[in-house]
Amino acid sequence: MNDLLLRAARGEKTERSPVWVMRQAGRILPEYRAIRKSISGFKELVETPELAAEVTIQPVDILGVDAAIIFSDILVIPEAMGLPYQMEEGRGPWFPKVIKTESDINALHVAEGSELQYVYDAILLTRKGLNGRVTVIGFAGAPFTIFCYMIEGRGSKTFSEARKWLHANPEASHNLLEKITQSTINYLKLQVEAGVSIYQVFDSWAGVLSAELYKEYCMPYLNRIAQEVSQVPSIVFAKGAHFAMSDLLSSNFNAVGLDWTLNPADLAHIGSKKTLQGNMDPTVLYADDQYVVQKTKEMLTSFSGIPHIANLGHGVYPDTDWKKVKLFIDTIKAN
Amino acid sequence: MNDLLLRAARGEKTERSPVWVMRQAGRILPEYRAIRKSISGFKELVETPELAAEVTIQPVDILGVDAAIIFSDILVIPEAMGLPYQMEEGRGPWFPKVIKTESDINALHVAEGSELQYVYDAILLTRKGLNGRVTVIGFAGAPFTIFCYMIEGRGSKTFSEARKWLHANPEASHNLLEKITQSTINYLKLQVEAGVSIYQVFDSWAGVLSAELYKEYCMPYLNRIAQEVSQVPSIVFAKGAHFAMSDLLSSNFNAVGLDWTLNPADLAHIGSKKTLQGNMDPTVLYADDQYVVQKTKEMLTSFSGIPHIANLGHGVYPDTDWKKVKLFIDTIKAN
Repeated sequence: MNDLLLRAARGEKTERSPVWVMRQAGRILPEYRAIRKSISGFKELVETPELAAEVTIQPVDILGVDAAIIFSDILVIPEAMGLPYQMEEGRGPWFPKVIKTESDINALHVAEGSELQYVYDAILLTRKGLNGRVTVIGFAGAPFTIFCYMIEGRGSKTFSEARKWLHANPEASHNLLEKITQSTINYLKLQVEAGVSIYQVFDSWAGVLSAELYKEYCMPYLNRIAQEVSQVPSIVFAKGAHFAMSDLLSSNFNAVGLDWTLNPADLAHIGSKKTLQGNMDPTVLYADDQYVVQKTKEMLTSFSGIPHIANLGHGVYPDTDWKKVKLFIDTIKAN
Repeated sequence: MNDLLLRAARGEKTERSPVWVMRQAGRILPEYRAIRKSISGFKELVETPELAAEVTIQPVDILGVDAAIIFSDILVIPEAMGLPYQMEEGRGPWFPKVIKTESDINALHVAEGSELQYVYDAILLTRKGLNGRVTVIGFAGAPFTIFCYMIEGRGSKTFSEARKWLHANPEASHNLLEKITQSTINYLKLQVEAGVSIYQVFDSWAGVLSAELYKEYCMPYLNRIAQEVSQVPSIVFAKGAHFAMSDLLSSNFNAVGLDWTLNPADLAHIGSKKTLQGNMDPTVLYADDQYVVQKTKEMLTSFSGIPHIANLGHGVYPDTDWKKVKLFIDTIKAN
C-alpha cells in the first residue's frame, strides 16, 4: 500500500512528496463528465455510492495521484442538520431556506452522522475498488464556512451577512458554530469508521475574517474537531487566512494547507515543525508544458526541508486540461 | 481649509487622524438613493457632472468626512480605451465586449484622458460646491484590476481567465498592462489639473495574485503611475495583497491602504515610515453603537505612532445604516 501521504502528514521524512489535487475527482476528467451527463445532476452523483466511488477512483487510475479523496460536498452537513442544498448548473450550490433569526438556529438539530450513510457506503466501495492501492481521504467543511452558507444561502464576495452575525450577535453565532461543530465531529468519526485513513477540513471562506475573528470564531471549533477525531491524521486548509497561519500551525491538526498566495519561507519565523500542503497556483496549469514543469519544481524547492504534501493552492479549475494536471503529478513523482 | 488628509498622507504629524470612507458617496445615503432613483441609471450619474458633484459633496455635509472622493467608477478607463461597460442593477458592472486575443489588445488605444471630460467637470463643480471646506480625492483603478475586468468581463471569485493570461501569455499581458498604465497616467494628470489634491489607486482584485506575480505584473506599473503623477500625494489600496505589503510600503506612493485582514503590528518588521490608511472591518458597522465605538477606538490604537488616515478596510457595504458610519467618523474626530 502507498502510505506516503500518511507518513508525510505525520511529519515523517518521505522519499518524495506525496501528491493529490483538490477537486481531482471532477469536471477536469472526461470520464467524470460522461458519468455526470448520464444522470440527473450533481446530487444524484453524491448520493449514489456506486457512482461516487467510481468518480473517486478515476483520478487514481487516470492521473496517478497518491490518494483518493471521497467524492462528496461539504454542504451535506447543513442538509443533515435541516437545511437542504440544491446545485444550480453553472452557478454553484444554494439553499432555498437560510438562517435568518435566532429561532432558526434553535430549530436546527445536531446531525448524528447517520443521515449520511451514502457517504460511508461510498467510502466502503472506494476502498474495495482501490484494493489497497492508495490512501482514502475523508473531508468536511470548517464550521465557519458552513456557517457562511447557512446564513448567506450561496457564495458571496464579501459574506457580509455572515460577518454581520459575528459582530452583531456573537452569542447566537457561537450557538450555531457549536451545532455545526458537533455535527461535523459525528460525521468525521463515521467517515473514519468507514475507512478513511486521513481527512481534510476545508475552510473555504476563512479569508473574509481577520486574526481576531479567526481566533474567536474558528480556532476553538477547528481544534475541537481535530482533537475529537484524532484516530487518523488530519489536514486543515483555510483559504485566504494568511492572518491565522500561526494559530493553524500550532493547532491540533497534523498538516496545514497553504493557498497559492503564501510562501513557505514567510512562515519560517513561526518555527512550526508541522507538515505543509500545497500550493502551486492552479492557473499555472493553463500554460505550456515547460512552464508547468518549471513552476512545479520551483514549488517543490520552496518546501525543501519541510515535511510536505504536494497539491495545488486551490481546487483545480474545471476548464483545466487534465493532461497538465497529470504533468504536474508526474513531475512531483519523478522528483 | 481642512488639509488634515494631505498632511497625514505626506507623513506629517497631525492633531488627529483624518477620516474618509471608501464608497462614502453612494447607496448608504438616502439623499444619494433619491437622486439615483430620479435618473436612468448609474452611468447617467457618473456622466452628468452636476449630479456627480452633488453626490460627491453629500457625505461631507451629512457624515462630516475630512475629504470628498469624486463620484465615478474605475471602469471609465477601459471605456475610454474602447471597451464600454454597462451597469446591471444588483449584479454590478459588466462588459459586452472583452479581450479574447492578442489582436483585441492591439486594437485597443491608449486613452488620452480627454475622453473623460465629464470627470474633470465634476471635479471643478465639486470644488466650487465645497468652496474650500475639504480636500477632493481623485482615483483610478490599478492596471491589474482593470486588466481583470477587460478579460473576464465582470467580477469573478477566482479571476482564473485573467491569471491564465499572466502565465500563458506574459508578453501580451505586459502589452495590455502597459496600455492601461499609460491611459491611467493621462487620466490622473487631468484629474490633478482639474483640482484633486490627492488620489487613490484601487487594486481591488490584487488578492488573487501572489508575491511573485505582484512583483512582475503590478508593482512596475503602480510605481510608474505614482512617479509620473507626483504633483499631489497618492494612496494605493491593494485589497487582499498581504503578500505584497513590503513592496507597496517601499513603493512610490505616499500612503498605503490596509484591508481589514491586516494588522499594522504585523507590518512593523518592514520598517516603513509610510502613512497607513484603514482599516476597520466594515461589518462592525452592523453592530450596536457601543461596539462600533469600541472597535473604532481599537482601530485607532492599532495605528498609534504611525502617520494614519482613518478609513474602513473595504468600501462601506451598501446596506449599512449611515448613522453608524457617522458614529465611526464622529468617534475618530473626537479622539
